[in-house]
Amino acid sequence: MPRGHLYGIGVGPGDPELMSVKADRLIRSTPTVAYFAAKGRPSNARRVAGHLLTPGHREIRIEYPVTVEVLRPDQSYEDLLVECYDRAAEEVAAVLDTGGDVAVICEGDPFFYGSYMYLHNRLSARYDTTVVPGISSPVAGSAALSRPLVCGTEVVSVLSAVLSETDLKSALAACDAAVIIKVGRNLAKVRSAVESVGLGDRAFYVERATWAEQVTAPLAEAPESGAPYFSMVVVPSATACNR
Amino acid sequence: MPRGHLYGIGVGPGDPELMSVKADRLIRSTPTVAYFAAKGRPSNARRVAGHLLTPGHREIRIEYPVTVEVLRPDQSYEDLLVECYDRAAEEVAAVLDTGGDVAVICEGDPFFYGSYMYLHNRLSARYDTTVVPGISSPVAGSAALSRPLVCGTEVVSVLSAVLSETDLKSALAACDAAVIIKVGRNLAKVRSAVESVGLGDRAFYVERATWAEQVTAPLAEAPESGAPYFSMVVVPSATACNR
Repeated sequence: MPRGHLYGIGVGPGDPELMSVKADRLIRSTPTVAYFAAKGRPSNARRVAGHLLTPGHREIRIEYPVTVEVLRPDQSYEDLLVECYDRAAEEVAAVLDTGGDVAVICEGDPFFYGSYMYLHNRLSARYDTTVVPGISSPVAGSAALSRPLVCGTEVVSVLSAVLSETDLKSALAACDAAVIIKVGRNLAKVRSAVESVGLGDRAFYVERATWAEQVTAPLAEAPESGAPYFSMVVVPSATACNR
Repeated sequence: MPRGHLYGIGVGPGDPELMSVKADRLIRSTPTVAYFAAKGRPSNARRVAGHLLTPGHREIRIEYPVTVEVLRPDQSYEDLLVECYDRAAEEVAAVLDTGGDVAVICEGDPFFYGSYMYLHNRLSARYDTTVVPGISSPVAGSAALSRPLVCGTEVVSVLSAVLSETDLKSALAACDAAVIIKVGRNLAKVRSAVESVGLGDRAFYVERATWAEQVTAPLAEAPESGAPYFSMVVVPSATACNR
């Protein structure tokens, strides 16, 4: 029996209309759709693409562990993640083995901090795969701010807010524009790093870019706490791309 | 008379199906569509979105000067570019002033090295604007290679191949993954920079990602010359995002 085809599909930053025409077509036509979700939470990718799913679709919800879980003494959170990806890869492979195609949908772009890559690394040697790129959060955040991010010969870097303040500062010093993603509980640290390298005046906070619930503010006016995981700090080019 | 609305629309990396559903809708419904093109060359953005244009659309082709043009002694290439953007902004403003909406389309994303930003900076204080983000070339290149670009707490940087070899090397040393865009005639310099910082083994060349004419190769096997402007060198994360 011919094996199924695995699709890794970026559904973009949040506004369902920012999915590509190709993502829209493939999600509608692929019988099994898989997505990641935090334990006990709705899946963001499913929220974006939900209007394309019908009762005819089979859905595979992949629950990844959350960091507040109680671990056995011999376990690390990393172990739990690896188990989660192993188990998910097996579940997807079982469908592919019976000839069924599977579309794994994820927010933003699959290969840009997307969870799909962990399935891809486990399955792409055994099955035919196609990755459909998506609109990533840095460009969505810039559009939300209505400010150019980077131009000409400038360097732009994307950083994770999980980095230490020291690492954030040295990475910020090495580029002309930056986007710090996955801000969440790290907002105070990120603000401190951005301000200490003199970028406070041109930094912005963006929460849930392109969602109906989008929030934007100068970084100095961002709320002290309560930033969701899907928030970012955007530091556009100092030139504002004026010429 | 109410003024027209200005849209800056990213049409993505090249495959017309990688336009967002929103870009598709707005291009169809906006009566005037503007795009940049090098003097004497077809417009790449128009090539991507051409199937959406009808005889009812008014098209504004904005020709930017090419670097081989003969300049007067008192002129710089920068002067010519500024004149080009000033003139284009006036032409677009004339339509907006009569109440007509204008969609400026550009490859990739409008605020990520896109030419739209020069019109935005000239017009956004006077007219209502909406920027529709697009799929940018770094994620398109990674999808073309079928390799994860960056994950977890890694730093990814986007660099212009126009930078000096010294600047390329220091920027490459400061990140975990990188994409060098606008390679064109700078391929030999880029290869030298990438190899001299020890990244030659995991670097790839991608030409016209997601176009029908797409080419991918390990960087070591890329053609010595003839790389088009829309080519890039992708250096995925050393971890390959394995976990």
